[in-house]
Amino acid sequence: MLSMETMQQHMASLFPGLIGVRLVEMTPERVVGELVVRPDLCTAGGILHGGASMAFADTLGAIGTVVNLERGKRTTTTDSSTKFIGGAKVDTTVIGEAVALHRGRTTQVWQTSIRTREGKLCAVVTQTQLILD
Amino acid sequence: MLSMETMQQHMASLFPGLIGVRLVEMTPERVVGELVVRPDLCTAGGILHGGASMAFADTLGAIGTVVNLERGKRTTTTDSSTKFIGGAKVDTTVIGEAVALHRGRTTQVWQTSIRTREGKLCAVVTQTQLILD
Amino acid sequence: MLSMETMQQHMASLFPGLIGVRLVEMTPERVVGELVVRPDLCTAGGILHGGASMAFADTLGAIGTVVNLERGKRTTTTDSSTKFIGGAKVDTTVIGEAVALHRGRTTQVWQTSIRTREGKLCAVVTQTQLILD
Amino acid sequence: MLSMETMQQHMASLFPGLIGVRLVEMTPERVVGELVVRPDLCTAGGILHGGASMAFADTLGAIGTVVNLERGKRTTTTDSSTKFIGGAKVDTTVIGEAVALHRGRTTQVWQTSIRTREGKLCAVVTQTQLILD
Repeated sequence: MLSMETMQQHMASLFPGLIGVRLVEMTPERVVGELVVRPDLCTAGGILHGGASMAFADTLGAIGTVVNLERGKRTTTTDSSTKFIGGAKVDTTVIGEAVALHRGRTTQVWQTSIRTREGKLCAVVTQTQLILD
Repeated sequence: MLSMETMQQHMASLFPGLIGVRLVEMTPERVVGELVVRPDLCTAGGILHGGASMAFADTLGAIGTVVNLERGKRTTTTDSSTKFIGGAKVDTTVIGEAVALHRGRTTQVWQTSIRTREGKLCAVVTQTQLILD
Repeated sequence: MLSMETMQQHMASLFPGLIGVRLVEMTPERVVGELVVRPDLCTAGGILHGGASMAFADTLGAIGTVVNLERGKRTTTTDSSTKFIGGAKVDTTVIGEAVALHRGRTTQVWQTSIRTREGKLCAVVTQTQLILD
Repeated sequence: MLSMETMQQHMASLFPGLIGVRLVEMTPERVVGELVVRPDLCTAGGILHGGASMAFADTLGAIGTVVNLERGKRTTTTDSSTKFIGGAKVDTTVIGEAVALHRGRTTQVWQTSIRTREGKLCAVVTQTQLILD
């Protein structure tokens, strides 16, 4: 299995690096990351942009899938659905926790909850990953 | 109504500015934007990251809603669901077209199709915007 | 290709038969059906139950997929997302129109719009169908 | 608060009654129901129809919302998204468990997991309920 450090380095020049996703835990059952709500991740009013929330979650759910892939398999997200529940303020940090709802041969389903440090739920993202040869 | 130029400037220091959303058309029925698939918007393999697609679409749909808001009203995205259909390669440009499926008093529903310049469909994002006082 | 009549008969003893889905058009690009809003398809207040709307749409989108399947292939719905937009009253008829957003080798994406006879949009359902050997 | 028995009776002549939803637990945090997979709730191959799964879940999530409503308020489902994970066979019973992800003043979000009696996950449905005056 890829180490968390390797995964972190791998992302550095990609989109998760641009937004600043920092991995905190990476197991086959659970992936946790942190994201600092920088001003350039916000929408009007100093609130984390919905698109940044979805990108953060998408990253964690995809990593969770990759961690579970058999050698030689690939994955692609086919669906993602998000419920936005509460805002996260600029200059705070949000925590994303992705857990597997399903890890099958043809699909995996991961659900990511994004919370403030105080535990307030901001968004829930559920995504389907297709497993490809 | 806000002009497209004002909206573009307004976004410059926010998340849509970070990813490089460029507005091309902005009417109450339709919002069109372009996004250059920069390397730092990609996932492994030089393909536009799903999170960047969702952020791009979320931006266009939210702008469409704002264009239709009565004075003094605000909006927030409550739901967004995405079907990922095809990849967009690094250094190409994708076009996002958001159209209103519903413009009501309490909610608006916008659907954004992201396509390559050649017209190949990459993703379809449907989002619900709650209208607040 | 299966005829529409054969498909209609095939559904008679299944869930689409229980709720009364009637096929009106069935081509590889588009499937149209009608549903009478019977009292036992409603929720409180004499309005078509959201679950009945979703079941109606799911049926049409799945049929659209089946019409496009190569011989020997099967399909299963992996994802379905619905935006509820307006109510349909008891004793009226709603029309569902499913169109293909994507018809690929591994997945198909169908979107169904449910409208009243007067053309008022009630719901939009977008579903992903996985194609299996 | 409405009793579970009153709610069950209230549903009898409506869509949840047609498909046979039976309430087992009803609290402000959690609603549990059972559904016998009758042949007329199935799709081809003797598997619970996706539409019936969504209708079952929608019913439980809406009831959860109603249980939390202040007097004089109403609710309507604005969004529902479903991940289909595994099939449920004819003549078995599935259990649906709806839990609140969010109970706010303007929206509630409920997530329903449908499982076989053996605990195998069949579907996860997440729905947003708008609260209206």
